This record gives sequence, structure tokens and C-alpha cells, in this order.
Amino acid sequence: MLEISLDHEDSLSPPRQIYRQIRLAIMAGGLCDGDALPSVAELARHLDVAEGAVGAAYGWMSAEGFVELHQGGPRIRVGVRETRPPGRPAAPIELWADLPKPPARPGAAPEYDFRTGIPDRHLFPTETWRHLLAEQLAAMPSQSLVYEDPRGNADLRTEIAAHLRRVRDVRATAADVLVTNGSQQAVHLAARVLLRPGDRVAVENPGYPPPRQMFASLGAEPVGVRVDAEGVVVAEIPDDCRLVYVTPSHQFPLGTPMSLRRKLDLLAWARRRGAVIVEDDYDSELTFTDRPLEPLRAMAADHVLYVGSFSKVLLPMLRLGHMVAPAALRPALAKAKYLTDVGTPSVEQAALARFLAGGGFADHLRTVHGEYGARREVLIDVLARDFGDVLTLVPAEAGLHVTVRAERDMWPLVLAARRAGIWLYSLGDFTDPPNSAHGLLFGYGAVPVDAIEPGLRKLREIHDRKGRK
Amino acid sequence: MLEISLDHEDSLSPPRQIYRQIRLAIMAGGLCDGDALPSVAELARHLDVAEGAVGAAYGWMSAEGFVELHQGGPRIRVGVRETRPPGRPAAPIELWADLPKPPARPGAAPEYDFRTGIPDRHLFPTETWRHLLAEQLAAMPSQSLVYEDPRGNADLRTEIAAHLRRVRDVRATAADVLVTNGSQQAVHLAARVLLRPGDRVAVENPGYPPPRQMFASLGAEPVGVRVDAEGVVVAEIPDDCRLVYVTPSHQFPLGTPMSLRRKLDLLAWARRRGAVIVEDDYDSELTFTDRPLEPLRAMAADHVLYVGSFSKVLLPMLRLGHMVAPAALRPALAKAKYLTDVGTPSVEQAALARFLAGGGFADHLRTVHGEYGARREVLIDVLARDFGDVLTLVPAEAGLHVTVRAERDMWPLVLAARRAGIWLYSLGDFTDPPNSAHGLLFGYGAVPVDAIEPGLRKLREIHDRKGRK
Repeated sequence: MLEISLDHEDSLSPPRQIYRQIRLAIMAGGLCDGDALPSVAELARHLDVAEGAVGAAYGWMSAEGFVELHQGGPRIRVGVRETRPPGRPAAPIELWADLPKPPARPGAAPEYDFRTGIPDRHLFPTETWRHLLAEQLAAMPSQSLVYEDPRGNADLRTEIAAHLRRVRDVRATAADVLVTNGSQQAVHLAARVLLRPGDRVAVENPGYPPPRQMFASLGAEPVGVRVDAEGVVVAEIPDDCRLVYVTPSHQFPLGTPMSLRRKLDLLAWARRRGAVIVEDDYDSELTFTDRPLEPLRAMAADHVLYVGSFSKVLLPMLRLGHMVAPAALRPALAKAKYLTDVGTPSVEQAALARFLAGGGFADHLRTVHGEYGARREVLIDVLARDFGDVLTLVPAEAGLHVTVRAERDMWPLVLAARRAGIWLYSLGDFTDPPNSAHGLLFGYGAVPVDAIEPGLRKLREIHDRKGRK
Repeated sequence: MLEISLDHEDSLSPPRQIYRQIRLAIMAGGLCDGDALPSVAELARHLDVAEGAVGAAYGWMSAEGFVELHQGGPRIRVGVRETRPPGRPAAPIELWADLPKPPARPGAAPEYDFRTGIPDRHLFPTETWRHLLAEQLAAMPSQSLVYEDPRGNADLRTEIAAHLRRVRDVRATAADVLVTNGSQQAVHLAARVLLRPGDRVAVENPGYPPPRQMFASLGAEPVGVRVDAEGVVVAEIPDDCRLVYVTPSHQFPLGTPMSLRRKLDLLAWARRRGAVIVEDDYDSELTFTDRPLEPLRAMAADHVLYVGSFSKVLLPMLRLGHMVAPAALRPALAKAKYLTDVGTPSVEQAALARFLAGGGFADHLRTVHGEYGARREVLIDVLARDFGDVLTLVPAEAGLHVTVRAERDMWPLVLAARRAGIWLYSLGDFTDPPNSAHGLLFGYGAVPVDAIEPGLRKLREIHDRKGRK
């Protein structure tokens, strides 16, 4: 007799349990083509269930054609099959093994959090956002709750265009804007429409790792190009690059803005080569100077794909960003957005559109600008006063972090600091090869203004203790 | 005298306007290396502004190194440059031109909406969702509002695993689950991790277009494999495919569930070839039979990447889906998720986790199951009664649409119906080559139960009118 038993605790009904166990027996090789099954009456008696339950299971199996209910009694009909085919494991393509895991996050909130790229969660207008979401959830047209334009909510695109004109001097209309799930997705879409495997891509060295890794994950070859006091050294960009990824307003990680001369060189280079400059303007709504930090996109539209983000001024985990692309790329980018994730969630887009349109975003930007400006000032003052002998500030005029250069490898200090509850990054984390420049990055997005001086004092103590050892 | 004028309506300050106009003159070739600029006093007099304004602009330009403030008066220093380098336009790689634009949506809500894949927006528990979002927005730990685990919110992954065990008999734990922005992103990530350009990918023919197009957009070669009454014809899958994309529980578009025999063949094939089966279980939480529609993933874990979605039971524009991948692929998939968009928005994930954990989702599933089941019954009855002479129902037991086969090309009827306010798809939209099978798809997600009979009556009238012409 076939080994079938019923488990009365199982959420599966008796007919389903019978079906499942016969299926398992076939897969394990215990039942083969032509094998006899017990009759409905026999199996029902054996399992102590109604004949109807066995009949239902046999009926399904017969309908699927793997049990034949003929006169001599039911028989398995699955064709002759290898019971255990030689297995070859499924594996990803090789390049993924070379790419690092997503970065580690602190388990709990660090006592002093000087990491870059992290805004203050407590500055986020939670109550306003809750209200906007509720309003849009109730009021949205049915259609956009079902499937949205892959390029984004029309109102939001209009508002982003107006915002960019106002704040970044970028001339754009709604048609120019594509809404993305944050800036990394914008850069990814650009890479998807521009790059073939084997293509070379210029990235800044030192530079922001995720785009570089993403280019490599597409089989392209990122080439690190040196950054000097005027920005990326255009003369050293390989001529065959189809894409150059840069952060001109607030170079990541150094902070240096790109000089006008360098910008003109870069634009001329891109025109000559038919290349695209991906300009990541990731945190330049926060400027701390009167001097214009004009985006490349404000100077030339045809070869610059401008990428912006609401991660720094609002919150990263809203995952809301955008791009303004050269017209020739837009149809392909809309297709790429549709084919990679269909579109960005609707309600959140509509809420952000209202926040921008109603002036709430501009007010919020003023608030965070004031707060981060105050932190920045304290940070720069304390660094000059207490670390002036070992660290040199890199001049910068925007963003959420400052960078200092050092004579020695800072990685041991960073590690010791982390153990003591101070999280910050080393400049060497962002160079190629790793650790080929020395310095530290001090983010002021996550650290309250009052914690800056105590945090730096503690860091100095750790530094001095290490020096004595 | 250099042509500079101030616009008092402009939001830019006078120094910024001066800076911008000199920059524009350099870019246009009107100012070249070595050209003299007016002195601060001269330009201030000419523009009728304070000398400080001109001084500030010249100061910025001097700091950037493109104006030299020497004794003989200020001079441009930009190096010798081509004023108008020969332009080569930026262009996407060729394959994008061959891919279709994202599908057109009706401008307004159609009078009778029989499109597939569209759930009823009015069944969405708006009030509950609003409450869940508000609750999570206020209560979420700071950390996950800043950067979330790229694999998804831990609570949500736990709840999805429990849900899959309960509803789809898929044995999974939180570690097995990766949260995605809908199912298309899940399939995209699978492709990114498994495919090289030139690789062949098996897709069902007829089949769901977006994954097929997405594979092509990565430079892979999708191969349509025939679907018969038992599902995809495994014997016709090319041996060199590394990935097979299938919809076994409710084949899209036909609806036919894959037979057990065919499932066993497909699993054996994948093991032999080291290939991965991407199983899109897009709407199979809605089953209308007692018969088990076991996912492939419930039968074998090592070669099946299971993809699920909340688009059909909740709303597409939440963009929430998930995958349960073979263990060997998980590290690469987490990297791919991080590098393509960092992560799925946090608050919405936490809200969905609560909805699942609190039993609200199970209740909601029962509600929509009842409603859609009623619509399905009416639809099938009316089709049999009023279209039995021209259309033949394809047997199916799950999902949000039914498919009928026809003897003749249905595209003219679909077009005429659309003009009359009835939206539905033709089976020929999903075949390769297009229109190589005839039939219609009737979605019942968007059409109220009372509108089904009038909608079909109107469709029959259009059909008969066309027949007479």
C-alpha cells in the first residue's frame, strides 16, 4: 500500500493532502509510470475519510492527466522520467561576486553620527506629510491609483520643473522631467539606455561608490578620473567614454565645486565625443555661499542629464528623485523606467506635488538650510580650532558634509572611533585604489548641533590616545 | 563695451546676473582669452548698481580663475578654446528604438473597462491604509526612515513568508524574501543577476509583454515557446536558455494552469541545465477552484525564483511586490536591488507589514475574492449565453481575467469597441508574431458586477454591426 497519511492539524484539506502526497511520491521516485494506485474505496477506508475526498483528489489528478482511472484500477501516467536528474546549480553571472555587499549600517543609532548623506529624521515634517498622504489618498483620480504614467505624476513633474528653475537655475518644463525612485535609480536608467557591456564610463576619483559599482554590474568598465582643486581633470577622461558621472556643485567626497573653466572643458569634450554627462546634484539645494554654483545643465541642455533627489532635504527612504535628460534620450528613458519597475508609487508623488505647490517645501528647505548651516559653522570652527594641527579643510560651499585632508591613514582612527560610538567615513573609502588619499568626512545631517563639539572632543581624545601608542 | 544689462524682474541678484552674462558671453564666443573687461567702477556706472555688486561678481570669477584682476584692468583667462566644438548628438544605444513605448492608457475612465490586470480601486481599503501609513510614519524607528535594508523591511519579509506558507503553500522564511517595487522589478532583478547580453531567455508564447521586452532591453534574446493545454511546451525550450519566465498558475494571457506532468518536466529541465525558472504568480491568490494550483516553488526551491505582487489584491500603484529566490542567487539579488534603486520606500513597507500581521489583509483578500468571484461567474455565464456561437472559453481557475478563443481576428472589434467606450485586449496582442492567435481577454477587476451584462450586450451589438458590413 502506498504510504499516505492525513495530518488533521494541516491547513490543507484532505483531498489536497492526498494530491500533494501522491505528487511528492512521484517526484521522489516512489511512484513511477504505470504503478497502480489503491481504489477510491480502499484509500478512503485506509485513511478513514469519505470516499468523496479521495474521489476529488483522483479527479484533479485525472483531469491533469497524471492518473488514469481505467477499469483495472487507477494507475500513474507520468511518462518515463529520470527520478533524480543530475543537478547543475543555478548561479548568478560572475561579475556579481566582485561587487561589494551593500554597506553595513550601525546596529543602533551611534552616539555621534557624522556619516555623510544622512539627513535629520527629526527635521522631517512628519505631521504635514501624514496630512498630505491622507489628502491625496482620498482625492486621487482612480486612474492614477491603478497605473501611473511611467515618467511620473504630471503635477509633480510640473512642480519639480518650477522648483529647478527657481532654486537651481535649470530651465525645464514638465515634459523634461522624469520622476525616479531616488537618484541612484536615475543614474541606473541613464546607464541602461547609454551603455553596452564593455563600454568605458568615467567616474570621479575619489568618488561616490554606488554609481561606479552599478556601472560595473552592467558589464561596463568604470574608469576613475583624478579630481583636482578645479574638479574632475577633463584632459584625463578617456576619449572613448560614452558617459561621465560627475558631482560638480559639491564633489563627492571632497566637496570642491567644479570651476567654470573645467565646466566649459567638460561640456566641450562631451559635445565633441557625443557623450553624456550625468550630473548628480545630490545635495546642492543646500548652498552656503552667494557665489553661483550653476549646474552644468543650466549651461547646456543637450549633453547633460541632470539628476536630483529629495533624499537630503526630505528623507532617503521616501525614495523620490528625478532627472532632466537631453531630449534625444527621453523616449528610451521612459521605456527603461517602465520596463524596470513600471513607475514610482502614485500617492507619494501626488503628496510631494502638493507639498511643492503649496510652498511647504520651500519653507521646509529654509528651515533645514538654517539648521544645517548652523551645524556646518560649528563643525568648521571646532575642526579649525581642535584639529587644525592634523587636518586641513577642503573648501566647499554646499551640501551636508565637509571633508578634511590628513597626512596619515585615517582608517585606524575611524575604526577606533566606531567602537567608541562615533561613526564617520574615511576619505580613503572613496579612492581607487582604496586608501590612496587620507582624510575624513564629517556629515552634519544626523548630528544635532549640540553634539558636534562633544563628539569632536571625544574623537580628538581617541586620536591622541592612538598617537601615544 | 561688453553688452551686459540687468533685469530687475529676475530672481537672480545683480552680482549673479553679471556672473551669468559674462559666462554666457564666454560660451557664445563673444569673450575670448585675453579680452579686457570694464573696470569695476565703469561697469557699476554703466549698470547703475553699487560697485560692491560688480566687485562680488568679479571676485567669484577671479576665485574660479577665469578672470584675472591685474593692474591693467580685469581680463578674461579661459585658455584658448574652440567656441563651437563640432557637436555629436547624445543618443541611446540602438536596441531601445526597437522596443515599444509604454502602453497607452484610456484618457478618461472607459464606460466599460474589461482590461486585464487592473483591480478595483474602490475595493481598496483607503481608510485603513491611511491609518496604517499615519501610524507607521509616527512610530517608525529613525534608522529605517533613513536607509532601509535593501532586501526590505524585516517585519514585512516575515509577514510575506508567513502569507506565502498559508496561501500558496510556499515554504519560506524572512531570509528568503526580497521586497521589490512590484513584480516587474523582481523579474528585472532576476534578469540583471542571471543574464549576459546575447543569452537566450525562454518566454511563453502567447505571453506577458513587459518581461519579454525587458529581457530584450538587456541585450538578451527572448525566445517565445509555444503554450498548449498543459502549459509551456517544455520540449521546445532551447537548451541554452539560462532563464525561463513562466506563469504556471494562471498562464498569461490564456489562463490555463500548467499540468503537474509539465511542471515536473520543467523542473527536471531546469536542474539538468542549471537554469532558473522565474515563476510569476501574479494573481493566483485569487483562485476559484478547490483543485490545488501549487506553485513550482512549492515543489522545488533550488531552481525556482518565485515572484509575487500586491498589485492585484491591493493596488498596482503601491508598487509592492516580492520574490523568493534560490539561496545561491540571494547575495547577488540584494546587491542588484541596492545598486538599481537602494531600496523600496520604508513607510509603505511597514504599513503593509502591519496590515498582514493584523489580519486585515486576509480579511481584505476574502472580500475581494468574493466580489471578483461574483463578477467572474456573471462574466462566464453571459459569455456562454450571448457569445457561445463565436467565442470559446479557455478553462482557467484563478486570477482577474478570462480568455476566450475566436475563429477570426478580433482586433477590428477591439478597436471599434474602444471607440464606443469599451476597453478590452485582443489575444493577438500577446502572440509572437502579433495576431497569430485569435481571441479576447475579459478582465473583471475594473468592471462593476452590474456593468458586465450591459457591457457585453453593447459589445455584441458592435460585433454584429461589423459582421453585417
